[in-house]
Amino acid sequence: MTNFEVRQYDAAGRLGKVEVPRAGVTVETPTILPVVNPHVQTIDPAALESEFGAEILITNSYILHKSDELREPALEQGLHDLLDFSGAIMTDSGSFQLAEYGEISVTTEEILEFQHDIGSDIGTPVDIPTPPDVDREQAEDELATTQDRLERAASVDTGEMLVSAPVQGSTYPDLREQAGHHAVETGLDVFPLGAVVPLMNEYRYADLADVVAACKRGLGEVGPVHLFGAGHPMMFAMAAALGCDLFDSAAYALYARDDRYLTVRGTQQLDDLDYFPCHCPVCTEYTPDELDSLDEDAREDLLARHNLHVTYGEIRTVRQAIRSGNLMELVDSRARGHPSMVDGYRTLLDHAEQLERSDPASKHAMFYTSHESARRPEVLRHHERLDRFDLEGDEVLLTEGGSNDRYDETWGVLPPFGPYPRELSETYPLNAETPERTDRAACEAAADGVARLVDCHPKVSFTLVHDDWPETALTRVPDQVRVRDLHERD
Amino acid sequence: MTNFEVRQYDAAGRLGKVEVPRAGVTVETPTILPVVNPHVQTIDPAALESEFGAEILITNSYILHKSDELREPALEQGLHDLLDFSGAIMTDSGSFQLAEYGEISVTTEEILEFQHDIGSDIGTPVDIPTPPDVDREQAEDELATTQDRLERAASVDTGEMLVSAPVQGSTYPDLREQAGHHAVETGLDVFPLGAVVPLMNEYRYADLADVVAACKRGLGEVGPVHLFGAGHPMMFAMAAALGCDLFDSAAYALYARDDRYLTVRGTQQLDDLDYFPCHCPVCTEYTPDELDSLDEDAREDLLARHNLHVTYGEIRTVRQAIRSGNLMELVDSRARGHPSMVDGYRTLLDHAEQLERSDPASKHAMFYTSHESARRPEVLRHHERLDRFDLEGDEVLLTEGGSNDRYDETWGVLPPFGPYPRELSETYPLNAETPERTDRAACEAAADGVARLVDCHPKVSFTLVHDDWPETALTRVPDQVRVRDLHERD
Repeated sequence: MTNFEVRQYDAAGRLGKVEVPRAGVTVETPTILPVVNPHVQTIDPAALESEFGAEILITNSYILHKSDELREPALEQGLHDLLDFSGAIMTDSGSFQLAEYGEISVTTEEILEFQHDIGSDIGTPVDIPTPPDVDREQAEDELATTQDRLERAASVDTGEMLVSAPVQGSTYPDLREQAGHHAVETGLDVFPLGAVVPLMNEYRYADLADVVAACKRGLGEVGPVHLFGAGHPMMFAMAAALGCDLFDSAAYALYARDDRYLTVRGTQQLDDLDYFPCHCPVCTEYTPDELDSLDEDAREDLLARHNLHVTYGEIRTVRQAIRSGNLMELVDSRARGHPSMVDGYRTLLDHAEQLERSDPASKHAMFYTSHESARRPEVLRHHERLDRFDLEGDEVLLTEGGSNDRYDETWGVLPPFGPYPRELSETYPLNAETPERTDRAACEAAADGVARLVDCHPKVSFTLVHDDWPETALTRVPDQVRVRDLHERD
Repeated sequence: MTNFEVRQYDAAGRLGKVEVPRAGVTVETPTILPVVNPHVQTIDPAALESEFGAEILITNSYILHKSDELREPALEQGLHDLLDFSGAIMTDSGSFQLAEYGEISVTTEEILEFQHDIGSDIGTPVDIPTPPDVDREQAEDELATTQDRLERAASVDTGEMLVSAPVQGSTYPDLREQAGHHAVETGLDVFPLGAVVPLMNEYRYADLADVVAACKRGLGEVGPVHLFGAGHPMMFAMAAALGCDLFDSAAYALYARDDRYLTVRGTQQLDDLDYFPCHCPVCTEYTPDELDSLDEDAREDLLARHNLHVTYGEIRTVRQAIRSGNLMELVDSRARGHPSMVDGYRTLLDHAEQLERSDPASKHAMFYTSHESARRPEVLRHHERLDRFDLEGDEVLLTEGGSNDRYDETWGVLPPFGPYPRELSETYPLNAETPERTDRAACEAAADGVARLVDCHPKVSFTLVHDDWPETALTRVPDQVRVRDLHERD
């Protein structure tokens, strides 16, 4: 089991540190592992380290194992010298090739031994990346094979090398959850969520959110979680909020080759850009026309650098958001990059109860920034907390306006939270910033809060004074509550 | 009247070019005019030009006029030499000082003559910046004074120097609109919307949207519109979508002095940052700790540079969004930076009919990215277009599912647009990308479309087959329409 220390949570997002003993380094998370192709290096690993601050990268041990030119040098010099990179190096096993081409010619034991011999810091067994939507029997059978291989991997002596335990199970949440449990039980170190690339390629962010949430239920809070093959900065915030710590991708390089330009709001084709919507060192130095006029190698190099700047910039943005306690606000903003990201965000909020468990008890004032905000973990927690307050008296006023002596007790009401004891009005989460122009979703959530409070105190007589709530909210208020609009004459 | 050419619209946003004859340059818009203080230059104007691509800046002629050290050098060398800037230079008149200190010692004629004499490319009369929320009499009186001064300004011979015509009127939409009309009638060249800084300082983005929309109704589409004193990149997209072309601000420098760090999602205090949520040349080179350890001058310089990189990066992002036809998607995303920006966005959408007038008839596929998207100009236009379609037959099916021969004609239905002739399904705006998990707002807008079509064809018998619309949408469908759920047995 790896040494993984979580410094701070926000939703299920974690600011953490992974100790990588063989490399003698500690890697800060969330982070991205740039994929380095041993044969073709768009940006050489030394530059990844010095210019972009890469603490870790990933390369493919199966490619090295099969390569007549590179196999021996890798064994003789070791990976760190071969690639000229002093940080942590993770190696993949050939599972991707297995998924693509149907077979590979090594076993888990062989490839782990090879990874160890070439000096990898984090090795990977040969798991079976079961694609989405296969029938259940295939998903179960392949998961059994994967689990068998993880157990073998756990029994191989790999010295200080960490070993990852990929979590499979296709699009079956119960299999993913069970696979997560099993992976932890193996005692292995890093937990890649496998075979999610097809979901991302098809913009199925809703399904991705369900898969990640299911895996996390099984994994619990031990060890770093790696969203295998995820490298588009548009989804880092969402994946981090669900509890992913590591990302990896060759996108920065592969996209550059095709003149594709990454942004946190999606991918652009260089040809479609008249202006660079970016302020990285490349985009402040060149215009799209200037880049276009360069020869292919120079253009590819600069585009790859832009792609890396945006990628690392978004990693820092996610880290700072966790630090500031506004990761969910970042998710809300990033979700507007594409309708399928909205689907992902709405699905993430289906798991608000799960995210609430690790969300800090107090943090930066919440910003209510959309209808979706009404379903945030903070709102859910306030509703749950309503069960624990005492009420004094038989006649209680819940109001968005001023207090009134005719009642035994007066509580405040704030959409989306609902009722709260007035002395808490300046405390978290009731110090939230909310729009003046509130929305139905907020009023409905507040009405649900009222219903919850009423349910806990069946003998109390409640009066609710609301500020112009819509009918859809008022119908959620229990019948026994007297309801008045704030602006209505008494 | 200035030569202002609009190359492309998106909503009321404009990609344009302002000819500035005295400077012999053309300035691309939207753009920002960095405020340069003649006495203290955090980043010198030559660097603004060479490093940040500034084509235009603004400085204060009243400060020069009052300065014993700078008055003569400005008159002798001219502003361009004095500041070392070869682009266009706009000058303010002292109106700000008037608003701050209650009086200034020059007339419009004197200051325009001085601006002309020091070589300003765009001069400004001494208008009265009436603050928000004053009583109507004050707003009217001061507007009359401003209008009188604009008329005097129009009669001064200023050679090739352009002259701006500030639009005042406090928070009275009808006064702002009337002031816009009057400003255009003066024949002056550039139209600053005045006295909006108090609204921005108080995060009153909803009121700001109403003020801008009112001014624009009066101004129409002539000449560049300048949101005076607006320099925070978080609101460029929203202001541009309402039809603002020019921004100006000293924020990059003033904020840097106070260790404040601009982002498109708001302002951060340097002390609160463990990671730079940014990928500009400064933030890729330094960590917050490193910046913090520098001496004050070096830190201020680097923070100002960061602030400018973000500012110009957002200007390019807005330009590219207009070019790509997705400015409203950018507004949607940026609105999530603060609840008061959500208020601003919701208020902007109150003016969808106004924005629709300049929105292109066809552009990039619309992305539906929030409940707010249901109120976009594109949806409104589709609803208006429903009046112009012919229907064949007496029995018409409107359906989210497949067609049915039992009806004389089958139309498709797509939330948020509503009904459409099937042959248009691949054309703009019906090629929109929408979330799988649609929302009430989209279904309700679609129901409004159904109602509109039914209203145009009172003799036709309609059947609506919808995909699980909520009650709030179904109640908007006229009673005479037969309604079925797609998943209900026939």
